[in-house]
Formats: sequence, C-alpha cells, structure tokens
Amino acid sequence: MSDAKQDALGEGDNDLTQAMRYALSGGKALRAFLVLESARMNRISAGTALRPALAIECIHAYSLVHDDLPCMDDDDLRRGQPTVHRKWNEHTAVLAGDALQTLAFELICETRETPPQVQIALIRSLAIAAGHRGMVGGQMMDIEAETSDAPYSLEQIKQVQHGKTGALIRWSARAGAVLAEADDAHWQALDTYGECLGLAFQIWDDVLDIEGDAKEMGKAVGKDENRGKATFVSHMGLDGAKEYAAELVHKACTALDIYEEQGDCLREAARFVISRRV
Amino acid sequence: MSDAKQDALGEGDNDLTQAMRYALSGGKALRAFLVLESARMNRISAGTALRPALAIECIHAYSLVHDDLPCMDDDDLRRGQPTVHRKWNEHTAVLAGDALQTLAFELICETRETPPQVQIALIRSLAIAAGHRGMVGGQMMDIEAETSDAPYSLEQIKQVQHGKTGALIRWSARAGAVLAEADDAHWQALDTYGECLGLAFQIWDDVLDIEGDAKEMGKAVGKDENRGKATFVSHMGLDGAKEYAAELVHKACTALDIYEEQGDCLREAARFVISRRV
Repeated sequence: MSDAKQDALGEGDNDLTQAMRYALSGGKALRAFLVLESARMNRISAGTALRPALAIECIHAYSLVHDDLPCMDDDDLRRGQPTVHRKWNEHTAVLAGDALQTLAFELICETRETPPQVQIALIRSLAIAAGHRGMVGGQMMDIEAETSDAPYSLEQIKQVQHGKTGALIRWSARAGAVLAEADDAHWQALDTYGECLGLAFQIWDDVLDIEGDAKEMGKAVGKDENRGKATFVSHMGLDGAKEYAAELVHKACTALDIYEEQGDCLREAARFVISRRV
Repeated sequence: MSDAKQDALGEGDNDLTQAMRYALSGGKALRAFLVLESARMNRISAGTALRPALAIECIHAYSLVHDDLPCMDDDDLRRGQPTVHRKWNEHTAVLAGDALQTLAFELICETRETPPQVQIALIRSLAIAAGHRGMVGGQMMDIEAETSDAPYSLEQIKQVQHGKTGALIRWSARAGAVLAEADDAHWQALDTYGECLGLAFQIWDDVLDIEGDAKEMGKAVGKDENRGKATFVSHMGLDGAKEYAAELVHKACTALDIYEEQGDCLREAARFVISRRV
C-alpha cells in the first residue's frame, strides 16, 4: 500500500507533489485495508479495489493536512514527523490538501474492471461522506466545540464523530459491497460494521489521548484534557468508554454473520482497534 | 443561475453551509455560462447541463475562498464583499472551500439523463483540470512567483495561466461536447475555443489590474504592479497585451466554424471578455 500510495500521483516532482507524497506516507492505512478486505469478502480482486483504496487514503490524508493547520488544530507533529505546514509552509499545506482531495475522485474514475455506474456510486457516496454533511461538517462542529459556551453533550460528540471520522470509515467498509453490486443484506452488514468500528475507533482515540504515550504515537497526547474539551472519556469515564467500545466491537463482529468465516479478518481488525497503543 | 447556486447544497443551515452559499453568490458565472452554452450548441438541454454548470462554479468558488486566505493572496474583498475568512474566520474558509470542492463531484453524479460513462468522463477531466497538474498546480506556481529570484518569464506566466485559470475555463467550454459524446472535431473546436478564451481572459485581467477601477471591480487593483510581479502587461506592454488578447479572441471565434451560426453566442462572449471593465 505504501508504494502504491507514492505512485498514485504519477509523474511530477515539485514542492506541491512532494508535499502530497509526504502527506500520503506512513500511517496505519486502516481505510485502505477496509476497502481491500471488504472487496475480497465480496470476491472483488485487490487489483480492482486498489484505486478506491488509494482514493480514501487521499481523502484521509488531505483532511489531516488541513486539520493540522494553525487555523484549525495547530499541530506540529503527525505520525512522528513535522506536519506539512511545518515542513513546507501554510500555502503548500492548503494546496497539497486541495489537490489530494481532487486526486481521490480522479483515482476512482480509473478503477479497473468496474462498470461506470459502480464508479459513480462510489464517487457519489464518497462525496456525501467527505463533504459538508459528513467529514467536513464534523470537523467544523469539532472546532466550534472550542468556542462553545458549554462542553458538548454526549449526543453532540457522537454527531462530531459520525461525520469527522465515522463517515470515511463507513464508506471504506461498504466499498467492497458497492464494487460487487452486492444485495442489500451484504451492504447493510458492512455498513453496520463500519458504523460501529468507526465509533469504537474514535472512543479508543479518546482513551489513548489519556493513556497513550506521545513518543510511541508520534503526536501530542492529553490535548483534549488540557483544553477542557468534552470527549467520550470525560462523559463516560475511562472504564465506561472502554466498555462502550467493547460493546460496539462486539456489535461490529456480529453484523458480519452473513459473511460467515469470510468476515474473520475484519472481526480481528475490530478487536485490534480497541487494543492498539497508537 | 444565482438561485440554482443557492439551492445546490440542499438543506442545512449552519456557519459552514452559510459560508458555502456566500462563496457561491455573485460573480459573472462565466464558467457555468460556458457549460450551458456549449451544451445548447450540442443539443443538450439546460436541465441536463445544470449540474455540471453548478459543479464548475463550486470548484471556482472553492479556489477563490482558498486563494483569498492570509497564507495565499491575503485578500479582504471579493466581488465587493468581505472574503469568507474576513466575514467568518480562517477555519471556516478552509472548510467551506474543502466542502465546495466535494460538492462539485457530488453534483456531477446527479447529472440528469446522462449515461454514467459520460458522468465519469466529466468527473475525470474535471479532476485533472482542477488538481495538481491543473488549477492547484498553477496556483502553487503563482504563489511561488512572489519568492522567485527572478520575475517569471512570459513562458512561465503562460504556464501559471494554463493551470490556474485556463484549465477550468477549457473544461467548461468542452463540457457540452462531452455531455453529447460529440465527435473529435466538435470536441476539438470547443477545446481550442476554451484554451484561447482562457488565455485572453487572464491577459485582460492583467490589463484591468492596471486600467481598472477598484470600486467598479469590487476588489483591489494595481496589486501586481505594486508587488513588482511579472504579468502579461509587464512583458508585452499594455498595447502589446491588448493586441495579443485580440488575436486570441479571433482564434477562439474561428475555432467554432464547425458550429456555424450556432457558435455566435460564444463568439460574442469571447469579444466581451476583452471589452469588459470588471
């Protein structure tokens, strides 16, 4: 996946393309993994799923580059390396993020052995997941939490997560069913899996923000607590948050019953999400 | 077009969607006009061309919002109104721009009475025109001109224009031929028209930066000259630049010969581009 991500831009070597490649490097590539694995479960080859998998990593990378900007989360480190605006400058970070978003949609148009109506279904659902009703909307709510009169309620935190991290993870989990034009039951199974996994993932991020090790994680920890920001942990306590995450992982695993033992790898991934240290 | 632009986002009323609507308001809607007119010339209805026309206005609006940011051109006024980051704040401008780009791709997926392979052709060509090899690449070069050791050569200025403003205008002019799955000759005619029009448009912008009236234009003038930035006018002189623009408009009009009198409206538009005061 790492090599494929570096090749996604094609030729061209300048500050812009270097910053785009830099933003794509490293990371867990969880979203690409979900696309490839849900594709395999629906008998879609890795060759076919590769470009949608790269596309979702481009969207994710663009969102991180913009989220790290001084006017947003103002982060200096990402994945143990200087953030794009620290290594280059702010305008390069804005433009590299912009171009990574564009690249995502271009890549889906080049999905191999896939009828155009399926490519359109992928693009349309990705745009809804990434846009003002999805990821960007969630990020806007998340930033506004900082200037909100009262800390967000649990319901509001769930709404932020639903958009900010949930929508892309859910899209990734469903991608295999969309690529295969699978029936509703199979689509729904992956959708529920993705919804529960995304929520568990965010809860665990909040847990790691308290319990994690900054060096191991390659980014600052304790930021939310220091800012007095409401999180799943501040509402539910550490144990309550961990229990809730475990319940969600159980629900995610059960949702995959229809895939029988073909779902084992995704079940394993869900359990990993709430045991990870980074 | 103005009402249609305001409706493009669907429901939702918060700072993010308000900023998106604000960014879409006003302006000449040249790119949408080119899409609608090239569609008409290829016997495609306005109802079908509407969403691609809105999409290109979303991409254009997003690029203006990001270009106006303090880390880019740092502009306070756009179309006679405060820029998005001045009216709201920087993070709202970054996110509204991001979501407008996403919305563009979503809108093309909803193009009526159009086979999915045509929608994919529109999306793929739009992504190439808007991304790192097109608009964003041109904007990056344009910003780097400010810190370049020597003023840009005429060739470099053309390269900036080719990406920054040319690529979207060219896409808009071709859109009708793409929607109609027209033959190469008709596609090529509109492509040449769009290429010449885009270049003439930028040259005229440089002319207006010298001769224009700030109040009438709703934005600052004389900025390039004050910064000592190389432009078509600084290389060719005012008269030379005007002559070159007129030649390009002539070439644009002639390229439409294959459309006979059906091309008259676009020919008129080309002549307007080099007579406009704003």
